[in-house]
Amino acid sequence: MVSAVELKLLTIVAERVLEERLIRDLRSLGARGYTKTEVTGEGSRGVRASEWEGKNVKIEAIVSPEVADRMFERLAEAYFPHFAVIAYVIPVHVVRGDKYI
Amino acid sequence: MVSAVELKLLTIVAERVLEERLIRDLRSLGARGYTKTEVTGEGSRGVRASEWEGKNVKIEAIVSPEVADRMFERLAEAYFPHFAVIAYVIPVHVVRGDKYI
Amino acid sequence: MVSAVELKLLTIVAERVLEERLIRDLRSLGARGYTKTEVTGEGSRGVRASEWEGKNVKIEAIVSPEVADRMFERLAEAYFPHFAVIAYVIPVHVVRGDKYI
Repeated sequence: MVSAVELKLLTIVAERVLEERLIRDLRSLGARGYTKTEVTGEGSRGVRASEWEGKNVKIEAIVSPEVADRMFERLAEAYFPHFAVIAYVIPVHVVRGDKYI
Repeated sequence: MVSAVELKLLTIVAERVLEERLIRDLRSLGARGYTKTEVTGEGSRGVRASEWEGKNVKIEAIVSPEVADRMFERLAEAYFPHFAVIAYVIPVHVVRGDKYI
Repeated sequence: MVSAVELKLLTIVAERVLEERLIRDLRSLGARGYTKTEVTGEGSRGVRASEWEGKNVKIEAIVSPEVADRMFERLAEAYFPHFAVIAYVIPVHVVRGDKYI
């Protein structure tokens, strides 16, 4: 049995213009890496954006519960009042999880 | 501590031709938004599709447990008998989760 | 209520050059299918790769707990010593889950 550490998968979906800022914040709050996927979407505002404007970015990071909490606080303070951002956390079992703490 | 609401992350993977129909059904059953990712894949039929046919869409939506159940029922009735569709649900903690209900 | 089976969502993020090998291993260890997403990322080594080198693949498979464990062992033996690979498991409720076992 390979040991796996329980950590958090933090997922953030936002307009692409926020990508660099989100990654900088994630880094500064303790994330050691991230995966980025180009996605599109329609939010709870019910507005289907144009071909270009609908392009969002999904940023995923494996982090400790503390880093997830700190990023949630940052999002609540600095992003949610101004931008359409989705953020959620899922508990995950990670191989070689010590790399992420 | 920022409050987070426990909701469901509903993920559906299907042929791209089903995209509009799936999103219409999700909406009509109560989903407030979705994220779409272009993916490829190979299913349990063991057939590797051609470059074009292998292109699938992954639709993710943060929903209440009730909306997830309703969409599962819709999938079982109207999709699974006819199409190769994958659907699963994961519990997630969502920042500002009240937006999704 | 549509019955859903509890299975594992196994996610692997790796350099694209490993894609075929990872899928072959997943298959041989019992996975019945997979979904592939093209992603980019930055790992715990802190090196931002060039436009091309940063391109990774995310492979997701719905598997039994046994298949997830076997793939974790394979990753620990044959991949982690040599490559930057991220792997984690999430419990999921899957519609028509019997297809994946």
